[in-house]
Amino acid sequence: MNNKIALAGCGNVGTALLEILQEKRSELAGKYGFTFEVVLICDLMKGNIADPQGLDLGKVLDAIHTRRGFAELPQARGTFAEMLESSHATVLAEATPMDLKTGEPGMTHMKTALSHGVSVVTTNKGPISLALDELVKLGAEHGASLRFEGTVMSGTPFISMIREGMVGCKVKKVAGILNGTTNFMLTKMGEGLTYSQALEEARSHGYTEADPSMDVEGWDPAVKVSIMAKIFFGMDVPVIKVERTGITGITPGKVMEAAAAGCKVKLLAGVDEGPKGFHAFVKPAKVPFSDPLASIDSATNAVTITTDNLGDVTIIGPGAGRRETGQALLEDIFALCRGK
Amino acid sequence: MNNKIALAGCGNVGTALLEILQEKRSELAGKYGFTFEVVLICDLMKGNIADPQGLDLGKVLDAIHTRRGFAELPQARGTFAEMLESSHATVLAEATPMDLKTGEPGMTHMKTALSHGVSVVTTNKGPISLALDELVKLGAEHGASLRFEGTVMSGTPFISMIREGMVGCKVKKVAGILNGTTNFMLTKMGEGLTYSQALEEARSHGYTEADPSMDVEGWDPAVKVSIMAKIFFGMDVPVIKVERTGITGITPGKVMEAAAAGCKVKLLAGVDEGPKGFHAFVKPAKVPFSDPLASIDSATNAVTITTDNLGDVTIIGPGAGRRETGQALLEDIFALCRGK
Repeated sequence: MNNKIALAGCGNVGTALLEILQEKRSELAGKYGFTFEVVLICDLMKGNIADPQGLDLGKVLDAIHTRRGFAELPQARGTFAEMLESSHATVLAEATPMDLKTGEPGMTHMKTALSHGVSVVTTNKGPISLALDELVKLGAEHGASLRFEGTVMSGTPFISMIREGMVGCKVKKVAGILNGTTNFMLTKMGEGLTYSQALEEARSHGYTEADPSMDVEGWDPAVKVSIMAKIFFGMDVPVIKVERTGITGITPGKVMEAAAAGCKVKLLAGVDEGPKGFHAFVKPAKVPFSDPLASIDSATNAVTITTDNLGDVTIIGPGAGRRETGQALLEDIFALCRGK
Repeated sequence: MNNKIALAGCGNVGTALLEILQEKRSELAGKYGFTFEVVLICDLMKGNIADPQGLDLGKVLDAIHTRRGFAELPQARGTFAEMLESSHATVLAEATPMDLKTGEPGMTHMKTALSHGVSVVTTNKGPISLALDELVKLGAEHGASLRFEGTVMSGTPFISMIREGMVGCKVKKVAGILNGTTNFMLTKMGEGLTYSQALEEARSHGYTEADPSMDVEGWDPAVKVSIMAKIFFGMDVPVIKVERTGITGITPGKVMEAAAAGCKVKLLAGVDEGPKGFHAFVKPAKVPFSDPLASIDSATNAVTITTDNLGDVTIIGPGAGRRETGQALLEDIFALCRGK
């Protein structure tokens, strides 16, 4: 089948997907029999372009890289639903910015696609955290699927590893380092930097937004925990209900003190079983050097999954990055082709 | 579809598969729509039993656990091909002991099944290392598939993570700790035990065979490297051609010396790129504490995969164990159901 891909949101991640597709077109066809066209690209800043026969990706990427915008390319007009329908897309890659309160504009894009029988792959945590059940149900009613590997650990295939690779295992606990910015800052504090210096250095690497509270107050990992609670434990835990402590109270002194006791301070995010049943959390914790999670420095992510049949399995990989997150969209498009 | 499973080899791993299937029958049906019968079990010691309508797993497991053998159960007769054919099996789980030189009896079991259009899942490294291409081709000619997740890292879904989860990534290097016995011994030597004491303790945990050379001389990880070279790099590297150094030359002194330099000694197994192209190796190496592989103690396994789109991804999990390896067979049976 020739995949007809629509892309909503052509920022860093969307562009990375287009780059990977362009670079690997012949390899994907030869090695996997995977052929595709990109038939629609919608971006709030750059504009909307479409060609049901397939846009010229070379020209699209050139327009992006030279910052000329999409004015010289085949224009698409109408509402998103109209553009999607006339593009004959078979899959929507949704990579617009996250809005934690409304999920928009991703929510509308996803609902539109799924209700038209167009499967969705996304890296956008907003709609997945807010309305996963509703979106899956809508897709099922119209023969469309929804995949969202890139919402946790970017392209590191964490979600598919558990849901598809470790099928038959009962997940008892999941906990890990799901925010690279704070892990980078904790690493730096371990090297002697103050909190402010560590934050400044994270900024200089482009790891933080102007407002760093999404990271340092633990909102970003809390969104991921909300998604994990749903998919691994069937629990509805809105982001606001995740027990959440960030790293704003951590000092270099506390990091050094932990080190003297054979531990590293890590911002752990996960779901485990307590006296009152399962609970979802984000909190700084002392992790002994002997735990693989203690070895995770800088912006790397890692999660340990505890199951009945396999005990502990840990996966370590990039948690962010434009190319790494674009790769997540490709993985999900592939999985759809294989009927998942 | 109702899966009709034949099992060849009902030792530790085969029995673990039967136990998991029995324990999880209703969960597998409810959660995944996966239904099955075990229609044939062949074991050199216990005997051969069959029922095309499905053997009573409770009775089978009782006979195994009480060491009564299969005499009271419905007997199967004839050659393996005849038993397989009359069982109407749709998949063969092959878990007989490994023979590195001939691959038998697994080789004959697999060829028989594949040439009859019966897909095969296996944990048996012998035939996979010796004849993967031939087996895959034979299956393809008869509409049957072959999966072998359990040949490396038991049920930790390492092979499927790379081949199916990280699709589109170019694998540049793969290296890790693929033998739990030697890793356990190196850990113990780091705690002050001599080589002989470490070997003795590994024996007392049941980690080694009477002849420990498969482990300490690196043959076991070399077989896994041979399989990885084929599936990730398309290279034919017979086990004997893997550059192989075991741990027999390692002393507690060397382990302590490495520790003083901020490293652990690990028996690394993998494929990397050298001046003369890719090369397959098993060798003791000093791994810096900052590398996640340094944190892997005792009998745990771990592999780091280096790719273009995701950089380094590491997976850590059990590399052996009866239940963990039985789980691998279940994962592969599931994947077959999903058309892979």
